Amino acid sequence: MEFSSKLLENAVYEMSQLPGIGKRTALRLVLHLLKQPEERTNLLSEAITKLRSEVNFCKSCHNISDTEVCEICANPKRDETIVCVVEDIRDVMAIENTSQFNGLYHVLGGKISPMEGVGPQDLNIVSLIQRVKEKEVKELIFALSSTMEGDTTNFYIYRQLEGLNVTTSTIARGISVGDELEYADEVTLGRSILNRVPFENSIKAS
Amino acid sequence: MEFSSKLLENAVYEMSQLPGIGKRTALRLVLHLLKQPEERTNLLSEAITKLRSEVNFCKSCHNISDTEVCEICANPKRDETIVCVVEDIRDVMAIENTSQFNGLYHVLGGKISPMEGVGPQDLNIVSLIQRVKEKEVKELIFALSSTMEGDTTNFYIYRQLEGLNVTTSTIARGISVGDELEYADEVTLGRSILNRVPFENSIKAS
Ligand SMILES: [Zn+2]
Ligand SMILES: [Zn+2]
Repeated sequence: MEFSSKLLENAVYEMSQLPGIGKRTALRLVLHLLKQPEERTNLLSEAITKLRSEVNFCKSCHNISDTEVCEICANPKRDETIVCVVEDIRDVMAIENTSQFNGLYHVLGGKISPMEGVGPQDLNIVSLIQRVKEKEVKELIFALSSTMEGDTTNFYIYRQLEGLNVTTSTIARGISVGDELEYADEVTLGRSILNRVPFENSIKAS
Repeated sequence: MEFSSKLLENAVYEMSQLPGIGKRTALRLVLHLLKQPEERTNLLSEAITKLRSEVNFCKSCHNISDTEVCEICANPKRDETIVCVVEDIRDVMAIENTSQFNGLYHVLGGKISPMEGVGPQDLNIVSLIQRVKEKEVKELIFALSSTMEGDTTNFYIYRQLEGLNVTTSTIARGISVGDELEYADEVTLGRSILNRVPFENSIKAS
């Protein structure tokens, strides 16, 4: 791609460093900003700079928070004996969105992946074990993605918990509510049969 | 979408104002920036701010340029008697990329679209007519997109040229090189038959 301006080329380059944004898309986005009032560009640029420099992570659960301890952790109505372990803050948002969980979270910040050079020390695992030891945590719910990396991470944490008085569970995997069985993938369908629940429970849940 | 931080919410909001970037994508992009060194965010933010505040458009062809007159217009080897009229600078880049054109350009900045409230006065049309009157322009090539708006714009300019000694042409529309006829849309196929070229020409072109 040949640019008629270094300034333009540089802006497109920086924009295309974002994941999933190719050079063509980056050019489209940058040209859009040029057509908008200058204020638009300044607001965007200030918002990301401010977030990046001032971002704070809850010192208990590592969720992004503007306060030292996040609103969820600080809420006395939440059950602090149940902690749901997730990969990133998007998972917290997704679970919060269901209104089905009243416990606290622990954001690992990723999952163990030797392929991508992510080891246990790169994740918020030490602080999780600390929390279990120091706080009255009775149950950990593993809600990591159902991949080899997710399973490895669950298992790594599980072994660190040996000797501690805490139960562990994983979220149920199964056919999505409303999905046709015939379109479900085999593994999910298989698991959903193995992990079938008493019919009474399914009535309560609906 | 419920955010655990106002700073995060604001950054996602501003990012999602970009065309084709929904809230979810915006969140993914912003979280990516948070995982990268702060420098990354600063480089992006500076690049777009600097471009937006310092951007300059060539005073002859309106292409984006870091100099008063762009490199193409300033190049003495280019044929200034042929001017190719395009919608935006992406078209200049696309045509330059073919290495098939040695004339100059005129960037309109859009096309006439009553539906979107874009009239002739919003485009660089006056300066185009001025160029034809004052410079030795012998031919205008209309290279606007082949839509009703593009045709309207071509025709509007065409009428402004009445009485001026300039020929006009439009770029050839036809079946893409390498495309199978059976998959081509009817209109394109129809035009490509109507606008067939002498076989000798097609030999020269390949
Ligand atoms: Zn927290
Ligand atoms: Zn120029």
